[in-house]
Amino acid sequence: MAPVEIAASLQAVRTALDPRAIAVLGASDELTKWGGSMLALLRKFGFRGAVYPVNPRADLVQGMKAWPSVQAIGQPVDVALIAVPQQRTEAAFEDCAAAGVKVILMVTSQFAESGAEGAALQDRLLAIARRAGMRIIGPNCMGYFNSHADMSLLNSQALMRNDRLIKGEVALISQSGALAGAMLARAYDLGVGFSFCVSLGNQADLEVCDFLEHAIDDAHSRVIALYVEGVKDGARFVDLLRRARAAGKPVLIVKAGRTALGQQAVQSHTASLAGEFRAFESQVRHAGAVLVDDFLELVAQAAAWTRLPAPSGPQVAVLSGSGGGGAVASDLVGESGLQAATLSPATVQTLLALMPEAGAHLPFDLGAVPGPSRATPDWLRQVLETMLADPDVGAGLFLMTTMPEMAATAATVVDINRASAKPVAFVNAASSAGAEAGAKLKAEGLVNFANIKEALGYLRNRLAWERYDNEALAPDSRAQTAIKTIVNGFQPGLVSEFDAKRLLAAAGIPVTRGELARSEDEAVQAAAAIGWPVVMKLVSAQISHKSDVGGVVLNVTDAHAVRSHFRALQQAVKNVPGGATFDGCLVQQQARADVEVLIGTHWDPQFGAMLMIGIGGTLVELLKDTALLPASAGPHAIRRAVEGLRLFPLLDGYRGKPRAKLDALVGVAQRFGQLATQLGERLPECEANPVMVAGDSLVVADARAVWRV
Amino acid sequence: MAPVEIAASLQAVRTALDPRAIAVLGASDELTKWGGSMLALLRKFGFRGAVYPVNPRADLVQGMKAWPSVQAIGQPVDVALIAVPQQRTEAAFEDCAAAGVKVILMVTSQFAESGAEGAALQDRLLAIARRAGMRIIGPNCMGYFNSHADMSLLNSQALMRNDRLIKGEVALISQSGALAGAMLARAYDLGVGFSFCVSLGNQADLEVCDFLEHAIDDAHSRVIALYVEGVKDGARFVDLLRRARAAGKPVLIVKAGRTALGQQAVQSHTASLAGEFRAFESQVRHAGAVLVDDFLELVAQAAAWTRLPAPSGPQVAVLSGSGGGGAVASDLVGESGLQAATLSPATVQTLLALMPEAGAHLPFDLGAVPGPSRATPDWLRQVLETMLADPDVGAGLFLMTTMPEMAATAATVVDINRASAKPVAFVNAASSAGAEAGAKLKAEGLVNFANIKEALGYLRNRLAWERYDNEALAPDSRAQTAIKTIVNGFQPGLVSEFDAKRLLAAAGIPVTRGELARSEDEAVQAAAAIGWPVVMKLVSAQISHKSDVGGVVLNVTDAHAVRSHFRALQQAVKNVPGGATFDGCLVQQQARADVEVLIGTHWDPQFGAMLMIGIGGTLVELLKDTALLPASAGPHAIRRAVEGLRLFPLLDGYRGKPRAKLDALVGVAQRFGQLATQLGERLPECEANPVMVAGDSLVVADARAVWRV
Repeated sequence: MAPVEIAASLQAVRTALDPRAIAVLGASDELTKWGGSMLALLRKFGFRGAVYPVNPRADLVQGMKAWPSVQAIGQPVDVALIAVPQQRTEAAFEDCAAAGVKVILMVTSQFAESGAEGAALQDRLLAIARRAGMRIIGPNCMGYFNSHADMSLLNSQALMRNDRLIKGEVALISQSGALAGAMLARAYDLGVGFSFCVSLGNQADLEVCDFLEHAIDDAHSRVIALYVEGVKDGARFVDLLRRARAAGKPVLIVKAGRTALGQQAVQSHTASLAGEFRAFESQVRHAGAVLVDDFLELVAQAAAWTRLPAPSGPQVAVLSGSGGGGAVASDLVGESGLQAATLSPATVQTLLALMPEAGAHLPFDLGAVPGPSRATPDWLRQVLETMLADPDVGAGLFLMTTMPEMAATAATVVDINRASAKPVAFVNAASSAGAEAGAKLKAEGLVNFANIKEALGYLRNRLAWERYDNEALAPDSRAQTAIKTIVNGFQPGLVSEFDAKRLLAAAGIPVTRGELARSEDEAVQAAAAIGWPVVMKLVSAQISHKSDVGGVVLNVTDAHAVRSHFRALQQAVKNVPGGATFDGCLVQQQARADVEVLIGTHWDPQFGAMLMIGIGGTLVELLKDTALLPASAGPHAIRRAVEGLRLFPLLDGYRGKPRAKLDALVGVAQRFGQLATQLGERLPECEANPVMVAGDSLVVADARAVWRV
Repeated sequence: MAPVEIAASLQAVRTALDPRAIAVLGASDELTKWGGSMLALLRKFGFRGAVYPVNPRADLVQGMKAWPSVQAIGQPVDVALIAVPQQRTEAAFEDCAAAGVKVILMVTSQFAESGAEGAALQDRLLAIARRAGMRIIGPNCMGYFNSHADMSLLNSQALMRNDRLIKGEVALISQSGALAGAMLARAYDLGVGFSFCVSLGNQADLEVCDFLEHAIDDAHSRVIALYVEGVKDGARFVDLLRRARAAGKPVLIVKAGRTALGQQAVQSHTASLAGEFRAFESQVRHAGAVLVDDFLELVAQAAAWTRLPAPSGPQVAVLSGSGGGGAVASDLVGESGLQAATLSPATVQTLLALMPEAGAHLPFDLGAVPGPSRATPDWLRQVLETMLADPDVGAGLFLMTTMPEMAATAATVVDINRASAKPVAFVNAASSAGAEAGAKLKAEGLVNFANIKEALGYLRNRLAWERYDNEALAPDSRAQTAIKTIVNGFQPGLVSEFDAKRLLAAAGIPVTRGELARSEDEAVQAAAAIGWPVVMKLVSAQISHKSDVGGVVLNVTDAHAVRSHFRALQQAVKNVPGGATFDGCLVQQQARADVEVLIGTHWDPQFGAMLMIGIGGTLVELLKDTALLPASAGPHAIRRAVEGLRLFPLLDGYRGKPRAKLDALVGVAQRFGQLATQLGERLPECEANPVMVAGDSLVVADARAVWRV
């Protein structure tokens, strides 16, 4: 089916979230049925538009006049909720189409997620909708709500148990309905709401990107939280993440299918293409979004984002009602990638007067401060203000263990977060003994983190988001022309080392000098021209990993050795299972390396060209010490990625070796990325391994590529 | 002060936990004072022994007759709670001593934790106690309780808020009182209790080990949970962990001071020696105890241990009310070091009949099963039983998102855990929307894990505990004699490579052949005798790391080169800052290595001899790819440690290299450990680096040691 214009999709999302009239097909008096519970919820929160129950077998439903069909209503209907059994959905769609419905919300299941038959029915429904210009949310979803329109079409236990649809600033877009429900339940416990919340199910039509795009424009949504299994259009998704970034709206994402196991689970769930997580992660991070690994943490982090000021740096000052709690929290600060704050002497001076017993040492042990006479709310406020005023403190973390005056303490922390430019994350470790404090935080909407790790995860993510920077890159047009010329001569399939290096050279990447020799004599001449010692490599169209068949000889020092190795290489192809041709021998300059680096690119079907950098020569594979970036990554991003490698010290003067010229390495990686971007899916793979790095010198010693036309 | 016998300490712990009569010094009507709240708590839970309030300024306290002093009571008093201000504690101790009190519980603070003055007072109190044969718990602690004696002397918000002292099977021993309170609060929320719970504060006298030893013997305590900042006697602690293991009682430990930051926090907290965490961790793990990194998780894990059967293997079968939840949980299973279960065809066959819609694929999406007519408790029981009966399923994980019939579902999971030989860990991800289910679990005492990671942490730890094995090692008496002979000639300080290798050889460890040459001629003769090529190494008493001064020459192939290098080495010492003597040159066999390994030992002041194994030659330091074990580790433990190294594949036939003979490596490491155990603190350091490993061959190419007399 032809795709629909994005503008039309966006308009449909707006209509869905802010409808004037809603028809409920399958409306029922029985609250155990979806058509019963959803109608009840729609009325419960005070939706001000028209609501039309549709049920051919009833005159009244839940005390309201019921209609035999949507057409019978005789009034415009923006949204039709379809909660009828699967076998009646086709008729329902025809009814909606005839009545001019704009958006169908279909909660019924047993469609594409359940096999070929369901998929065929889903396709027929989509065809009906397309013909009539109707758009679909679902099927196999739980619906959505818009708190700012007091309108809920979400089937959720959490909504049934609560009287209020809390108006919030977090947009929640979830491929899973049950998870949306669980996240909503946690949000209620935290006292925070969502601007809108949508469960997307099979995404037969409207999908994550459509709602994400709306959230970016929506004035009520300041933070966007996503639960994603797979995206349909990786390029659009990444582009939207960038737009959200530009609009100053953080996007927090839980991605299922991060591991092979999760991927399997996702496929049996909604038939989403989970994709390779590393490419997803790389693209998402470089577009400035935030990845979270648990859906309950997603809620807490997104909510905190709307309620806490940003940390000004990674230094976390820990306060606890317990010295032991402070010690455990300090351990976890260190392990989370943040730092424990150290106070300046001036701050210590001021604090000593306030807490002589605790010695003004971080972490502060409030338990060491005697009794309620001293440790008043006012006193705590002064302590917190003094601490946060220190330029070497980026954020506070308040770990509440069971202690006296917990509710008053919580209230003070709420006030501080309102007044201060830096946050104090609050962890309630007192369980239900801290219920009053929890209630205070809930009433004020300050997030009550469930444990220390959750709070630290938030602070780390928020800081990374605030510090994000990415820069665009101008492509090199001369290189582009040279690259075009080279690839014109390429045949599909494996590109030989010789040709791959010509391609890299055209892209402006230094490669070792070398010549193709088809005879012993040519090999000796080439070696003499290049200078001793040389490397000799087998050339065979069928052999990609030459060293696995003994096809690489290092340190060839004289003409006699050249001849002898040439003959050995001729012999080597004969041992290759399945046979291989001997296409000659590359004679090359032997480059010296203090460190061997791998740089490569590959084409990801969802996210396009990706760039990989690794350190370690033959150890790269074993240590998996690689960074994956979008091929469009700029020099800062590449440099950060290289500096983040485990073996980076090898490039940085480890054990007296010369420091590598990092700019040169970053420049080469950039040119690699530009090459991959230019050639797109025609260059599925291109790899230089090893790139020989020795101080200032940097040269590609071996390369391979795959070409596709 | 002389240490007291352990038997006496143990008797004191028993008296403290099961006293016939308790005096409360500082007893008060005011519940905001410790002497008020603690007296009230002591009476609240129905303690059946005698309780004597002591307060010289009152006749009645909380309606009970009060006594002016302990001596005035005129009856035997087992335990005296001292809740008077710091300046009155000395008089209180004298009173208790005169009255023949057996154990003093001192909750008052401002002692050793607050500086020199407090430390001096603490010492005076200890002296009074020692004279009178009294034992002390505290000071600066929050007390303790024994649920099985209905007796609480713990000052805790959680106890004030609850009417019942839940009788439990977990012994909780905590250096921090506030954390003990927080952990107790969580235990109440989980509906589980502690057999006894003690907060130890400054440990002026009775300490963690005394209570740990009691818990091992205590029939009411099946699981032991510790919060530890530092231990006084590492050897006793480790020995007790082994005894707990032998008694079948798991010990779960949160250790503060795991990082440098946490260590700082601990020192400012109770002046405990936090120690080097890696040594602690290694000893504790090898003694078969369990480390947990958060105190709230400690409670959940310890409680679950008493309520859930053990997993039979690492394969976790995930069930969720949400397909998305199942996918997220599967990701986290993979990342936790466990495995996602795969069902056998027979199990799938049986389950297909029960859940045709969900396809019997793990993770099970219960949301896909049309409810409530089908998804009855009985149905769920069948599903769970069938799944657990599969030999390829080690444990289940039930992730409850907001779904219908949550309480009934929880009840079924409770039943399954009672009836089955395998566990189903229950995660309540429905927040307060799942309150009824939570209440059901609480009433039944089945742990309600707070999130997926907490549940997986428990399953992983429990499985590791069940699979623990460690074997004792017989020392080699001939080697012991040879070692004694060698070290007789050692001088204190740095041991030369030559002597270090003699020591290793005596211990039965293969070292490269080599001779000490003091002249060019001697060097040439030595090389000819050893065989070409040789390695030449500078010998100088002042130089430990020879390669840093150019003191190692590899691949010396003829006599001419030997002479030239000998002269260069003579020259090299002159460039050493501070000067160094030239003591000759080692001429050695040049060993070939596919992989370089490091094996070393060091003496830890708390835990004794430790063994370290690493892979990677010069990369060892950078990658920190090392395992630390107690020097007494047996071959299985050593082998597991080696196999757990990141670079282990290098030993295991990586990229076509020959597989190393692992038994030989393990044997060498064992002999290293035995050497270190025999010599104890006289051998603070001994290191072989590199050990050259090439297939079957294994030889120490360089070694160093430090000797102390």
